[in-house]
Amino acid sequence: MKTQEIADFVSGKLFGAGDIEIIGIAEVLKASNGQIAFVEKAGTFTATKASCLIVHDDFDTYLSNQETPSEIITRGCYISVRQPKLAFALIAEKLHPPKKPTPGIHPSAVISESARIGSDVFIAAHVSVGDNSVIGVGTQLRAGAKVGDRVKIGSDCVIHPNVFIEDCCTIGHKVILHSGVVIGADGFGYVRDKQKHVKFPQIGTVVIEDDVEIGANSCVDRGALGETRIGAGTKIDNLVQVGHNVNIGKHVIIAAQTGISGSVVIEDDCTIGGQVGFGDHVRVLSGAVIGSQAGVLPGKIVRPGVWWGTPIQPLDEYKRQNAHVKSIERLKAEVKLLKKIFEDKPLP
Amino acid sequence: MKTQEIADFVSGKLFGAGDIEIIGIAEVLKASNGQIAFVEKAGTFTATKASCLIVHDDFDTYLSNQETPSEIITRGCYISVRQPKLAFALIAEKLHPPKKPTPGIHPSAVISESARIGSDVFIAAHVSVGDNSVIGVGTQLRAGAKVGDRVKIGSDCVIHPNVFIEDCCTIGHKVILHSGVVIGADGFGYVRDKQKHVKFPQIGTVVIEDDVEIGANSCVDRGALGETRIGAGTKIDNLVQVGHNVNIGKHVIIAAQTGISGSVVIEDDCTIGGQVGFGDHVRVLSGAVIGSQAGVLPGKIVRPGVWWGTPIQPLDEYKRQNAHVKSIERLKAEVKLLKKIFEDKPLP
Amino acid sequence: MKTQEIADFVSGKLFGAGDIEIIGIAEVLKASNGQIAFVEKAGTFTATKASCLIVHDDFDTYLSNQETPSEIITRGCYISVRQPKLAFALIAEKLHPPKKPTPGIHPSAVISESARIGSDVFIAAHVSVGDNSVIGVGTQLRAGAKVGDRVKIGSDCVIHPNVFIEDCCTIGHKVILHSGVVIGADGFGYVRDKQKHVKFPQIGTVVIEDDVEIGANSCVDRGALGETRIGAGTKIDNLVQVGHNVNIGKHVIIAAQTGISGSVVIEDDCTIGGQVGFGDHVRVLSGAVIGSQAGVLPGKIVRPGVWWGTPIQPLDEYKRQNAHVKSIERLKAEVKLLKKIFEDKPLP
Repeated sequence: MKTQEIADFVSGKLFGAGDIEIIGIAEVLKASNGQIAFVEKAGTFTATKASCLIVHDDFDTYLSNQETPSEIITRGCYISVRQPKLAFALIAEKLHPPKKPTPGIHPSAVISESARIGSDVFIAAHVSVGDNSVIGVGTQLRAGAKVGDRVKIGSDCVIHPNVFIEDCCTIGHKVILHSGVVIGADGFGYVRDKQKHVKFPQIGTVVIEDDVEIGANSCVDRGALGETRIGAGTKIDNLVQVGHNVNIGKHVIIAAQTGISGSVVIEDDCTIGGQVGFGDHVRVLSGAVIGSQAGVLPGKIVRPGVWWGTPIQPLDEYKRQNAHVKSIERLKAEVKLLKKIFEDKPLP
Repeated sequence: MKTQEIADFVSGKLFGAGDIEIIGIAEVLKASNGQIAFVEKAGTFTATKASCLIVHDDFDTYLSNQETPSEIITRGCYISVRQPKLAFALIAEKLHPPKKPTPGIHPSAVISESARIGSDVFIAAHVSVGDNSVIGVGTQLRAGAKVGDRVKIGSDCVIHPNVFIEDCCTIGHKVILHSGVVIGADGFGYVRDKQKHVKFPQIGTVVIEDDVEIGANSCVDRGALGETRIGAGTKIDNLVQVGHNVNIGKHVIIAAQTGISGSVVIEDDCTIGGQVGFGDHVRVLSGAVIGSQAGVLPGKIVRPGVWWGTPIQPLDEYKRQNAHVKSIERLKAEVKLLKKIFEDKPLP
Repeated sequence: MKTQEIADFVSGKLFGAGDIEIIGIAEVLKASNGQIAFVEKAGTFTATKASCLIVHDDFDTYLSNQETPSEIITRGCYISVRQPKLAFALIAEKLHPPKKPTPGIHPSAVISESARIGSDVFIAAHVSVGDNSVIGVGTQLRAGAKVGDRVKIGSDCVIHPNVFIEDCCTIGHKVILHSGVVIGADGFGYVRDKQKHVKFPQIGTVVIEDDVEIGANSCVDRGALGETRIGAGTKIDNLVQVGHNVNIGKHVIIAAQTGISGSVVIEDDCTIGGQVGFGDHVRVLSGAVIGSQAGVLPGKIVRPGVWWGTPIQPLDEYKRQNAHVKSIERLKAEVKLLKKIFEDKPLP
């Protein structure tokens, strides 16, 4: 892409030449000729060798305050936008589109005769697809992915190597499941019968809506009776556990190694840190933010705001409480002094 | 099953027609015609459309206190038992028996000539079984499961897709290993030699007894020299780490993402929450309950009772301590006031 | 090996016969004839039936203090060294060398024609290797391992079953990746665009240096733009998450279920416990030790020393603070008493 094309594509303002050919993206300090980079804040880009730099709108002001603006401009060109990182991500998608292997089914794949495979599907070596499953147009099943019976996968999904999708689960369009993800394994439910644990039925399903991405080796258990659902646009990191009958809303972010117990509801637009633990039947209201390693007790309703700690509390309270704990030492000294005063000078 | 049959099967008391055909189970609020549901407590079932309801023994009392009992009865029939959830689980197993694929070995599977495969075994696509391994009667090895050399798997097990069982491990009867489980990888043990870490031998085994269920992507490491053992009837959730030489007793429950370091002993009938961490050589005595996210220091002996926090303490103490921490603010104010009194009115 | 050979091999001092044939290793209390065991401390070995015992240098002193040293000697022979556990590990490697399967490529493996496979490579059933990848001399790709395109794997590696290595990653020599490991999946990075999360480019790589070992089902994400790197000799346990652009030094130890966010730097020779969480851009300086379940806030610089808790603090401070918290109850009682004195005997 030429620099002018890029500026138009991100609705940015171009400074410098519009006909420089950009062939790739790079980090600002490691970029070289032919690459485009970005800086979040003015003032951090001085050493770049990128041919073009995405900068913030406030760059003009910055530039006019510099002593040698001409030198900066002659080094290349730049494009100013309101959200440099976002513009960079969009350009990256253009310049480095995800690999799209040639459609086809590898002869070592084992596909049920009753499965319906859409056009432009890529099925790699050692994949298996069960009875009556449906694979949507343009979807990739990479090496060793295993799809059960009566599974529906939408179009343009990427199912990475060694993923397993259990019977009857439904995957939307443009879903990305990273390597080792397990969708639809039995939930963890038992009923005590004297000493033994009798398995509670785990015969529900999983529904994963469009544009969801799930990280490597994460697990989403099927519903016990109903469904486990992950809403459109939600992004889940690696090694996350999603229990049975969990309902996650749209555009939620969940970082690595978080564990979500059965029947938890996380509403739209929440942000959940890493290694957070949710007891069962928690409800997180839309827009809440929960810090890493927090623990949410069963049944808790988490209101919008920023939460922290175990058991979770508002971040401000958490910080205040931490400060209080740190002040115990001084408090003890003060009390000791007061006591000493009494002992030295007893009241009449 | 007819309603009378079901009542007999769970030793329950039938109210209403005994000849209603029940074809499936469902949640009480989502059930429809031909389905059976359950309620744990009287009073929560009023809106169900289930054809039959499993209720608690105390339902009779409840019913006689209602203004329109006749309406409830005409809506269908019900069966009263002492443990509705347990009865429901047992009925579910009858009505929805686990899928039993037609026995046979898929041509893409790679089975060593020296392996002994029992009758009625199902071996799916892309499975491999190593030398001198034994697969018991009626066991399923689902797609992509990998079994090493000299492994013994009992009868009626379900080994889900992409499971790996390393050489020389032993799996009992009716064991369920969910997708991505790794049994018998090397434990994590090194000896420092100046700067380098020399691998301590990890040449022991894993023994998994009958009726164990292990969740997706969990790991059970082999013993360093001896064995790692998981006792009969124990149930382990997803993404759990079981270190080398751990010995877990019978009928233990371990929730997701818990990590158990080397040589820990967890005795029979313990219940362990999610994201718990055990230092090495901990011993948890029979019947102990450890809350989620707790941390147990190395070498600790955990007595029966309910434990919480890091480092773990009895739940009551944990709660009291949390309350104390919350009271620091008030305590500081009180001390400040006392100090002020002194300053304002100094003692003679 | 004969006992004299063993003594020479570990530069130890042999007491007793040098011609006893040792065929295997065992735990000291479970050892039998023909086996060698070790004890860390004098005084703990009395009941062994091992034919040879590795003991500490101070054994001589110990022995001379015993009433019946002759009995101990006649039971077998012993070898004294400075580091018994290390000597034992080195002997174990000799007596139980890792299984080395016969080189060859299983017919069910799918190897790109452009891949370069070194001599003495073992490729098991259902493995796939992508275009232009290079597999070094003597490396094993076990059943179901999947290697992407342009991957470089060094010599004498063991890639265990169902591992996945994504395109363009580089693996050094003598690397061990346990079953289910995922190398090079996309990192977790998005840019918010109004409600949606736009994927930030994840087009970097992973470099794993020589002698690294990574435990089962652990994940190492590729760099967003640059690389994620794991230094030579570093050992990582099971179910660990290593985020994009993380840089781990040499000879680092990381226990199970620890999570490392993006761009964290862990310098050489650090020791990290299990279930630790690192916020992004943390830097852990060489030689630091971080206790299990600790939490490190984003951007924190962790100096050498022993650290504990969330947020982390020096172990001593952590202990003192814990003691302070436990003393709140008494402090409250003291303040209550002071207040009562005032109330009973008001100041003039």
